[in-house]
Amino acid sequence: MSLSSTLLETAVDQLATLPGIGRRTAMRLALDLLRRDQHEVARFSEAIRRMRDEVRFCEVCCNISDEPRCAICRDPNRDEALICVVEDIRDVIAIENTRQYKGRYHVLGGVISPMDGIGPDDLNTRQLMERVHGGTAPHPTQVREVILALGTTLEGDTTGFYLNRKLSEQGVMVTMLARGLSVGGELSTADELTLGRSIADRKPYEQGVKR
Amino acid sequence: MSLSSTLLETAVDQLATLPGIGRRTAMRLALDLLRRDQHEVARFSEAIRRMRDEVRFCEVCCNISDEPRCAICRDPNRDEALICVVEDIRDVIAIENTRQYKGRYHVLGGVISPMDGIGPDDLNTRQLMERVHGGTAPHPTQVREVILALGTTLEGDTTGFYLNRKLSEQGVMVTMLARGLSVGGELSTADELTLGRSIADRKPYEQGVKR
Repeated sequence: MSLSSTLLETAVDQLATLPGIGRRTAMRLALDLLRRDQHEVARFSEAIRRMRDEVRFCEVCCNISDEPRCAICRDPNRDEALICVVEDIRDVIAIENTRQYKGRYHVLGGVISPMDGIGPDDLNTRQLMERVHGGTAPHPTQVREVILALGTTLEGDTTGFYLNRKLSEQGVMVTMLARGLSVGGELSTADELTLGRSIADRKPYEQGVKR
Repeated sequence: MSLSSTLLETAVDQLATLPGIGRRTAMRLALDLLRRDQHEVARFSEAIRRMRDEVRFCEVCCNISDEPRCAICRDPNRDEALICVVEDIRDVIAIENTRQYKGRYHVLGGVISPMDGIGPDDLNTRQLMERVHGGTAPHPTQVREVILALGTTLEGDTTGFYLNRKLSEQGVMVTMLARGLSVGGELSTADELTLGRSIADRKPYEQGVKR
């Protein structure tokens, strides 16, 4: 598909880099943007650039935050000794929506995926080990329990297997969500009841989970 | 869904304004952009802004173009007396891919849709009438035939009905694509053979087409 405008072609190429957006859809999006008011498109473009340039990550739990420390990590009513490890911010939102969890989080920023070349060092695993170790916190806390709240996918299981091994070495209790979750799905697509149930039913980490 | 970052929230809100993109998909796109290199996201954002700010429309046929006059309108080997009226640039690409058409185009920039509040004056109909009238061209040409190559949707039919009436008043021959196209679909999704066949089989405009 060669277009009559390189400006349009460049925009379509860029939109087609988004996950799940092919060239045909990218063209539809570009034409929609072209029909809009110039200021509206400037706001659109600016919102994306600013998000990437200015967004910060909580210095404790690595969640996306506008402050150095996120609202959950600043909340004194939440149990510091209980850490729930999740893949990304969508999982934090999903768990918060169940209103069943009063501990803190740790956001990995992904899962281990050898296929995509993502190893443990590409995730926020070092910061998690430091929290468990109590090394960097201003008031060191003994972490009592780490809940591995990862998706029930191959990558989620691989990441859980790795983290359980590393965390057990530190003598911390490691638990996992009850397999009430439908297997093969992403965490953030589970319904609230199922996800809430699986937080209540969490159990000691076991290797070689039946799928 | 309330997020821990207003920067992220603003970007998700903006992405969710795109057609066919809900908030859940918008969040996935935003997180994908967040994981990318800062310069890469700047290029992404800039490509969209520049497209909207700098893209031009061909002064003859209203197609998207980087020059004042598009490549098709500049091509002396294409029949100036034959104009194919289409909804948008995707339809130009689809028809060019059939390699069956050697006339010019006129891009309406949409179709008449009372549901969306789009009337004839929101489209490039005035420019079409001027071309048929020979009013603005430096070398006025007598247009011999106007082909209405619109999608076989309710909006496409409405637009065709309107344009046929206006053009017939000017004494120009108005034709339509053969209804070999599958009814209810968009023009740009038709396969090349069907679309090519329907250009060869075009026939005088008739009202009250059987669907």
